[in-house]
Amino acid sequence: MAGNAVIGQSGGPTAVINQSLVGAIEALSAAQKAGKIGKLLGAKHGVRGIINNEFVSLDNLPAELLERVAQTPSSALGSTRDKPDEAYCQKIFESFKKNNIEYFFYIGGNDSADTARITAEMAQKAGVKLNVYHVCKTIDNDLRTTDHCPGYGSAGRFVALAHQGDDADNRSLKGIKINIIMGRDAGWLTAASVLGRYDESDGPHLVYVPEVDFSEEKFINDVARVYAKFGRCVVAVSEGIRYKADDKKSLLAAKIMEGGEVDAHGNKQLSGSGALGDYLSNLVKAKLPAGLSLTDPKVSAGKLRVRADTFGYLQRSFPTIVSETDAVEARQCGRNAVQYALTAPGGLSSGSVAMRRAAGSVYKIEYFPTPLSSVARQTKPLPVEWVVDGNSMSDAYLAYARPLVGPMPRPGRLI
Amino acid sequence: MAGNAVIGQSGGPTAVINQSLVGAIEALSAAQKAGKIGKLLGAKHGVRGIINNEFVSLDNLPAELLERVAQTPSSALGSTRDKPDEAYCQKIFESFKKNNIEYFFYIGGNDSADTARITAEMAQKAGVKLNVYHVCKTIDNDLRTTDHCPGYGSAGRFVALAHQGDDADNRSLKGIKINIIMGRDAGWLTAASVLGRYDESDGPHLVYVPEVDFSEEKFINDVARVYAKFGRCVVAVSEGIRYKADDKKSLLAAKIMEGGEVDAHGNKQLSGSGALGDYLSNLVKAKLPAGLSLTDPKVSAGKLRVRADTFGYLQRSFPTIVSETDAVEARQCGRNAVQYALTAPGGLSSGSVAMRRAAGSVYKIEYFPTPLSSVARQTKPLPVEWVVDGNSMSDAYLAYARPLVGPMPRPGRLI
Repeated sequence: MAGNAVIGQSGGPTAVINQSLVGAIEALSAAQKAGKIGKLLGAKHGVRGIINNEFVSLDNLPAELLERVAQTPSSALGSTRDKPDEAYCQKIFESFKKNNIEYFFYIGGNDSADTARITAEMAQKAGVKLNVYHVCKTIDNDLRTTDHCPGYGSAGRFVALAHQGDDADNRSLKGIKINIIMGRDAGWLTAASVLGRYDESDGPHLVYVPEVDFSEEKFINDVARVYAKFGRCVVAVSEGIRYKADDKKSLLAAKIMEGGEVDAHGNKQLSGSGALGDYLSNLVKAKLPAGLSLTDPKVSAGKLRVRADTFGYLQRSFPTIVSETDAVEARQCGRNAVQYALTAPGGLSSGSVAMRRAAGSVYKIEYFPTPLSSVARQTKPLPVEWVVDGNSMSDAYLAYARPLVGPMPRPGRLI
Repeated sequence: MAGNAVIGQSGGPTAVINQSLVGAIEALSAAQKAGKIGKLLGAKHGVRGIINNEFVSLDNLPAELLERVAQTPSSALGSTRDKPDEAYCQKIFESFKKNNIEYFFYIGGNDSADTARITAEMAQKAGVKLNVYHVCKTIDNDLRTTDHCPGYGSAGRFVALAHQGDDADNRSLKGIKINIIMGRDAGWLTAASVLGRYDESDGPHLVYVPEVDFSEEKFINDVARVYAKFGRCVVAVSEGIRYKADDKKSLLAAKIMEGGEVDAHGNKQLSGSGALGDYLSNLVKAKLPAGLSLTDPKVSAGKLRVRADTFGYLQRSFPTIVSETDAVEARQCGRNAVQYALTAPGGLSSGSVAMRRAAGSVYKIEYFPTPLSSVARQTKPLPVEWVVDGNSMSDAYLAYARPLVGPMPRPGRLI
C-alpha cells in the first residue's frame, strides 16, 4: 500500500500561501488517483499539528472549495511559530512513522526549510522512506537560492499601491508622512514602496531599509531637503531599521519598545505597535523646523503637519490585493513540490522548490529543485548596491521587482 | 456672455471624490458646449485657491485623462482644512465677482456645505447671480438628509476586506487583535468592519463605536468571553471612542495623547498615531489574564499574543479598493449637481445633492436636491439602536450597509 502524504503551513501568512497549498493538493490528488500515494492529510497549525496528531483529511475536496481556498489570504491549515529543535523533530518523525507518512510538504520560510532538513536527515539515518519538499513563502523575500519568494509580489503590490494612494493623499493635504513597513531584517518589502512612482515628484521620496545604517541626523536632513523642494514628503521606513546595519541589537524599534516581546525564534516583536512611527514623527516635529529655517523661514513648528502610519498585518493578508504573477507562481511551486517528491530529479528526493529567471529580456520563470540546506537558516538581504544614497532604490531593483508585483495603475492628476 | 463655473474639493479625501469631480466636469463641459456657461475652472486646494486666485483650467480635458482622474483616490484638485468664517467667505465672494463666477460646485462634508451656504447667502443679499451646489463626500458617512455619503461605500469596503483578511490571519496564528478605525465622532466606518463576516466564528467579534459609552471593564470582559470561546478575538475600535458618548472631551485617544494637535476646526488629531491601539493592547495584556483565569487557567500573561493595528490613511485613499456602487453614485452626484445648478428644480438654485432609496426590496437610489442648511454644520451619528450589546452590529445595519460596499469574497477554509 502506498504511503500517505501530509502538508503543513508555517510562519507568517501571505496572500498566496494557499495557492501553494492548493497546487500541492491538486498534484497530490492526481498522484493519489494514480495509486502513487495513500491518504492525503493536512497538519493543523504546521508541525504543532503533526506532533499533537491533529490532522484534517484533504481527500476528494470539491474544486469550488479549493479555488476559494486558493483565493483566500493567510494559512488555511493554520500556522505556527514553533521552531523545532532536534527533540521536536524526533517527535515529528515518530508521528510520521505512526501515520505511515512517506511524503511531507512544508510551506514556509527558512526556519521551515531547516525543520524539513532535520526531519529528512533523521529518516535517512533511520533508513525510513520520507521525501520532504519545502515550498518557499514569505512576504520578506529573504530566502536564499530562489530568485524571489512566493508572497513577496502580492505584499509588494499592497505596499506599492498603498504608497501610490498615500502619495495622492499627501499631495492633496500637504505635510510629512512616515509609513512603517514590515521586514524585520530585510528591506525587500519596504523597497517595493517605490513601485507605484511615475516621476520624481511622486512619493515615497525617501526609503530606509535595515541593510543601511540608520542615522537620525541624515534622516532629518533628507526630509528637510525633500520638504523644501516639494512642500511635502512621503517616507517609507522598514520596521527593522537599525543604527548599525550589521548589528541586530541596534534596532530603533526595539530600543523604543524596551521590554518588548521576543518570540520562540528569538525575534523581537515589532509589528502590531505604532511605537516606531510615533517616535520618528516626534523626531521630525522636534528637529525639522530648525533644519528647515535655513532654507524656508516660513516653516514653523506649529505649521508642520507630520503623520505616521504603521501598515501592520494588512500587508500580508489583504484579500483581493494579489499580484497575478505571484498567484500563478505560488500555485506552480506547490505542484512542482509534489512532482519533485515523487520523481526525485537529480536524486533530490528531498529539497525545496526554487525559481530562476530564464535568459532574455522578457520575464519568464523556470522552476528547479534545490537542497534544503541551500534555503535553511541564513537569509538573503536586499543587495546594498540597490540602495542609492541610503534613501532610494536603484533602476536595477526596479527591473528586478516590477514583474513580481505586476502592472500598476497610473494616477490621473489635474494640478 | 455666460458666467464661469468653478469646482473645488475640501476636507479629507476619499477613493471616489474624483468620480464626483469628473461627473461635474463632464456635465459642465456639455453645458459649456451648449453655451450655458463660460470658462470652467478648478480651484487649487479648495477655498484656499479661490481666495488666493489659484485656479487651473478644466476646459477641454481629454476623456482618457478624466477617466484616469476618476479612478485615482484623493482630491485631484488638492484639498484644504480651512473652515471659512464670514470674513473668509467675503473673500471667496469677492474672488467670484472678479472672475465672473456664476456657478460654484464644492465637493466636501458638512463644513463645506456651510461654506457653500454662507457664500450663496452673501450673493443673494448682494443681488449677484451665484448658484452654489454642494456634493457630499466623506468616508465618515455622517452627513444629514442623504441616505449615505459617496466615499463611505469604498472606505467601508476597505475596512470590511481588511477585517476579513485579518480574521484569516488571526485564525492561522491565534491571539487577540485590535484594529483602530477612522471616525472621530461617528462609528459608521468601524461598523463596516463586520461586512465580510459569514458566521459567528468570523471576526471582528467585537465592535466599539463613539456613539456608545466606552467602559474599559466591559471591554476586558467582552474580550475575555470571546477569547474563552474561540481561543482568539478580533476587535474593531473607532478612533473616536469615549467614556461618555455625548461628551467629546472624554475621548480615550485625546486623553492618551495629551497635548495632541488640534486642527482649524477644533478637531483633535487622532489619525496618524498608534497611541490608542497601543493603549488598548497594553490594557488587555495587563488585565486579561486575571479575568481569563476564571474560565481558562492555562492562559498566563506570557502566553497571551496581543497585537494592535491602526489602519490610518490607507482607509480613505487605497487605489483599486472601490465599491462599484459607490463609484457610480459619486459620479452621478457630480453630474446632478450641475443639472440642479442650471435648472434650479423646485426653486433651489443652490443646494446639496442627496440620495434616498427607492421603495422596494431591490437597492435603487434616487437623487434629489436639498437646501444647504439641511446638510451644513450638524452631523448624523450611527443610530444607537443599530449597536447590539454595545459591541456588535444589528441586522438593520447589515441590510443598510451591504449594498453600499458591494459583494464580498467568501473565504475558503479547511479547518
